[in-house]
Amino acid sequence: MEIGLIGLGKMGFNMALNMNDKGNTVFATDVNKDTVKEISAEGVKGVDSIEELANSFTGRKAVILLVPAGEIVDQVIEQLKPHLTEGDIIVDAGNSMYKHTLRRYEELKATGIHLVDVGTSGGTDGARYGLCAMMGGDDDAVNYLAPLYEKICVEKGFMITGRAGSGHFLKMVHNGIEYGMMQAIGEGFEILDKSDFDYDYEAVSRVWNNGSVIRSWLIELMENAFSKQPKLEDIRGVMNSSGEGIWTVEAALDYQASAPVIALSQFMRFRSLEDDTFHGKVVAALRNEFGGHAVVKK
Amino acid sequence: MEIGLIGLGKMGFNMALNMNDKGNTVFATDVNKDTVKEISAEGVKGVDSIEELANSFTGRKAVILLVPAGEIVDQVIEQLKPHLTEGDIIVDAGNSMYKHTLRRYEELKATGIHLVDVGTSGGTDGARYGLCAMMGGDDDAVNYLAPLYEKICVEKGFMITGRAGSGHFLKMVHNGIEYGMMQAIGEGFEILDKSDFDYDYEAVSRVWNNGSVIRSWLIELMENAFSKQPKLEDIRGVMNSSGEGIWTVEAALDYQASAPVIALSQFMRFRSLEDDTFHGKVVAALRNEFGGHAVVKK
Repeated sequence: MEIGLIGLGKMGFNMALNMNDKGNTVFATDVNKDTVKEISAEGVKGVDSIEELANSFTGRKAVILLVPAGEIVDQVIEQLKPHLTEGDIIVDAGNSMYKHTLRRYEELKATGIHLVDVGTSGGTDGARYGLCAMMGGDDDAVNYLAPLYEKICVEKGFMITGRAGSGHFLKMVHNGIEYGMMQAIGEGFEILDKSDFDYDYEAVSRVWNNGSVIRSWLIELMENAFSKQPKLEDIRGVMNSSGEGIWTVEAALDYQASAPVIALSQFMRFRSLEDDTFHGKVVAALRNEFGGHAVVKK
Repeated sequence: MEIGLIGLGKMGFNMALNMNDKGNTVFATDVNKDTVKEISAEGVKGVDSIEELANSFTGRKAVILLVPAGEIVDQVIEQLKPHLTEGDIIVDAGNSMYKHTLRRYEELKATGIHLVDVGTSGGTDGARYGLCAMMGGDDDAVNYLAPLYEKICVEKGFMITGRAGSGHFLKMVHNGIEYGMMQAIGEGFEILDKSDFDYDYEAVSRVWNNGSVIRSWLIELMENAFSKQPKLEDIRGVMNSSGEGIWTVEAALDYQASAPVIALSQFMRFRSLEDDTFHGKVVAALRNEFGGHAVVKK
């Protein structure tokens, strides 16, 4: 089938190749013209503008966006909209906040254009060789895209999740779980590292990944990481976050769901970004005030 | 090789069959004589007492204990000790607290008997068809047992972890991580369930387990669980715990390691055992005292 793709970052580039491999006609563009040239050399039909991309279709237009979450999604939709007609489909395959997705869905609905939201997991290798994708949106649009996604996902790695927004919501919660799992794994190794036992962490990851209850892709990735650096000696424990964890906690608050471990995992990420903390100063000051306990001076 | 096994619970029974399959001569006993009969019918040499078990060996004696953690381990060691001599080996393959293991190791060392600690994961199926095992202890004893364990574990599922106690410590931390991962997964489904989207949780588990970042044995088990009960409608959210989570938190405190998510996962298990809480009464009373907020009366 004919499919458009806007955004040739690491995920988009690999997904374009993946869709091309599966016999689709892929029209792809990006603000970075070098990447467009690069992808054209691989057999994908690279084009120079969103307008050109939209005009390349001979039939029903379905365009996947893989651009950074936030305003850029709105901007790209604005540029794309004039070139689409009723029944055409915009697929937001990025990590958009589900409430933004719901707003965009309603806005586009007024013009007859479908917005389909796809939560995508599996990293860049997944994009290239087999994604995990969770797709929400109108039945008609979702059914049109399903055969394509069945082919570019790993077996059983594609799910139609329900109404608009449900794909992004499910992917967001997936990432919230991921934050909690990662923090638990991190804390486990922290305890090992502070203990007076002496472990080979690569071997630990390997044994934990073979036959144990916590065997998982994340533990497999730790084996890779420790094989490169036995004590991760060149990495500082700075844990950035990209939004989904925060949104998961916001959703828990909205729906009054108790999710303390996911929330704490997000807060520990914030904590990791600071060399010092104001709450630490407050607690140190209070200990000094009531008990005369020494404070560490700057 | 000749190997003894004391304790034919679900894990021990399956492990006896597993060792027997791999060509070992297994002497096995249990306080439950029916189980001894049952295992004898499967080709394992069931015996009626610890004394008889010890006397069955023709050479070096190595006896695996798979009995409940705590005093029973001490009692079984006391019964076994008179029948062992210098160089013989007791293997504690249960979930003993590592500090108890270190004490027992020192006590047995005085008599020349080796205590080897093995942390075992993988559930009853693992015990039967391929364990994950982490083994700590004296080199001589560990090297004697390694060929046996290599055979009864899954490939790459056996690790020699270092000095005495290191096997149980590593297994304990594994379980601490497991508690955190399970709580994160639970909270994720909690948010899905309280949201106003409507998901098929079996399908969600399946898609998350195919190509996503959180793919893991635990998510696979959730697919099984949801396939039996779409909303787990017959299960109350009571989360018991068996010690390792508590000990992991104690170890974090001993070693001053920051492990808040693992600690919170343990505390959430305690919370789940209560229909009402005293801290809840306190907070309700305080809200009433300072703000006149209504309390829910018993």
